[in-house]
Amino acid sequence: MSSKSKVLLIGSGGVGTIASYVLESNGKAEVTSVIRSDYQLVLDSGYQIKSIDYGEINNFRPSHIVNNVLDSIKYGPFDYVVVTTKNQPDIFSIEELIAPVIIKEKTTIVLIQNGFGIEKTIIEKFPGTIVLSGVQMISSTLYDGIIDQPGPDSMSIGIFNNNISTKNDQYLIAQNFISLYSNEKNNCYYDENVKYTRWRKLVYNATLNSTCALTDLDVGRVELFGGVDTLIKPAMKEVLAIAKSDGVELPESIMEFMIRSDDGVWYSPSMLVDLRKGNFIESVVILGNALDVAKENGISAPTLTVLYNLLQLIQARTKERKGLIKLPIQRPISNTTN
Amino acid sequence: MSSKSKVLLIGSGGVGTIASYVLESNGKAEVTSVIRSDYQLVLDSGYQIKSIDYGEINNFRPSHIVNNVLDSIKYGPFDYVVVTTKNQPDIFSIEELIAPVIIKEKTTIVLIQNGFGIEKTIIEKFPGTIVLSGVQMISSTLYDGIIDQPGPDSMSIGIFNNNISTKNDQYLIAQNFISLYSNEKNNCYYDENVKYTRWRKLVYNATLNSTCALTDLDVGRVELFGGVDTLIKPAMKEVLAIAKSDGVELPESIMEFMIRSDDGVWYSPSMLVDLRKGNFIESVVILGNALDVAKENGISAPTLTVLYNLLQLIQARTKERKGLIKLPIQRPISNTTN
Repeated sequence: MSSKSKVLLIGSGGVGTIASYVLESNGKAEVTSVIRSDYQLVLDSGYQIKSIDYGEINNFRPSHIVNNVLDSIKYGPFDYVVVTTKNQPDIFSIEELIAPVIIKEKTTIVLIQNGFGIEKTIIEKFPGTIVLSGVQMISSTLYDGIIDQPGPDSMSIGIFNNNISTKNDQYLIAQNFISLYSNEKNNCYYDENVKYTRWRKLVYNATLNSTCALTDLDVGRVELFGGVDTLIKPAMKEVLAIAKSDGVELPESIMEFMIRSDDGVWYSPSMLVDLRKGNFIESVVILGNALDVAKENGISAPTLTVLYNLLQLIQARTKERKGLIKLPIQRPISNTTN
Repeated sequence: MSSKSKVLLIGSGGVGTIASYVLESNGKAEVTSVIRSDYQLVLDSGYQIKSIDYGEINNFRPSHIVNNVLDSIKYGPFDYVVVTTKNQPDIFSIEELIAPVIIKEKTTIVLIQNGFGIEKTIIEKFPGTIVLSGVQMISSTLYDGIIDQPGPDSMSIGIFNNNISTKNDQYLIAQNFISLYSNEKNNCYYDENVKYTRWRKLVYNATLNSTCALTDLDVGRVELFGGVDTLIKPAMKEVLAIAKSDGVELPESIMEFMIRSDDGVWYSPSMLVDLRKGNFIESVVILGNALDVAKENGISAPTLTVLYNLLQLIQARTKERKGLIKLPIQRPISNTTN
């Protein structure tokens, strides 16, 4: 039996592939990667990686490659199931996806994903399983098996408290995962306050990411065309108010910090990129879950509410374009009226 | 000297061309039409009209065709200047466009255009000039010199009170224009309450038209995808509240009436069509002017405000795409911060 930790990695985009490379090359983990669309390509020739931290790597393949979760079972049982897919609970359920490979009191789930409230359904589905939060600051993209990673690999790992395991057990597992991932070229550190980290990231994502997606404009254009004053700041104030009602006090200065964070670059945030590719967006975890907290706590968030409801219409538009919704040729006459 | 009224018609889209045809064929007006993009086409072969009211008309040409307003002066002086262009005060000024052909105490301006508050700058610029409101219910389109008019020609004509002319003078002019336009095939009637009519139309346009434009969805899809409850009804309630603060009491039932008004048809409202064509939208007169009233009267309109601010970003996007805004290759670093 190998002394290496067994890791299943689900979601082989830019972030996931760098993670599988780092975990393998550090030598402490044996990675099985679930690869869907690029499966044959990666089987044949591996990934080509161009990384600011790790240099040029050709033909990288993790220890095992499978094209669906069920096929990975033979390489388990897994110590860690690392999820780096998009988080779109209105489109597909991560807990159902990973259910076949979660072994009670054995497997830890690591969610390296965007958004707020992403742990809730996971902790409900797997009581007592330890769930870690990964917030990756990398900007890494994947096209045709080629990974481009121009931003440094900097990741915080923390605990989504499952309220069953002891704090210490959860802490030790988090530290263990950090030890698997850390090397002298990256920065992987323990996150004392995951809730704070995730609310903080929403200050950017719920506002700039949403507005860019709705207007098909990058952050720089939203600013130059006047959107920072008309939309971004009002929306950011709402995020701060909801966070505060949830026990997280963010400084006002975070707003200006986030507005300036892409200065000098015509940066297109993730949901804008998703829409330009015709893909689904992460609107539920970037806005919807935060708005649920607002509702529970009686916080008014009119700007975020409108942004979210518009994005959900666009999500339905994508569903129709992908064939998940079929509409009749003739618009039906409503029968809801008198 | 001709006993016919002299009419200058500016804006030869679907609505304008039907108007010029009706005014000419009724025999009481001599129409000069300002035609820009289709000038040579219309000069050569006229318009081809396919109308539910007037049948098929080939090679229709108004009495005079010019390709800019200054060239029309030789066919004046005009009794009526009828404006049927899009109303986009953030893009171009109608009062500057028509200034060369407005003769004090002679010319009446007829605005057959969408939106609210469209008379304000006109009345300021031409004190004492009579200004009429035309609200056309026709659905008429123009492509390549071919007019398609599938909906009946039904137009209300009323007074934008200029607060200088007597009510009676303004009324008589409105009735005179109605007599020029009316025939046994159309329905052109006096509008007792222009303000009511225009607030009423905003119940549809500020809400459904805006939401469709922002989501690239027709009215039927916005409804089927859940947008009526999440966006349209809240926005409509805001329109009703602003109208009320402006002295116009619309019945609550107008909301359901407007939501159902396109039942059975996958209808794309005007701003959605404008955006799909890559054109500017009438967001200022459909939303912006109403929001000015809200601000003056202290009425909260958060939904309409967000819709409007998003549409204004999209308007700027169109400006850049049309080359009216040039941005540097490198995003500038802001100097607004400390």
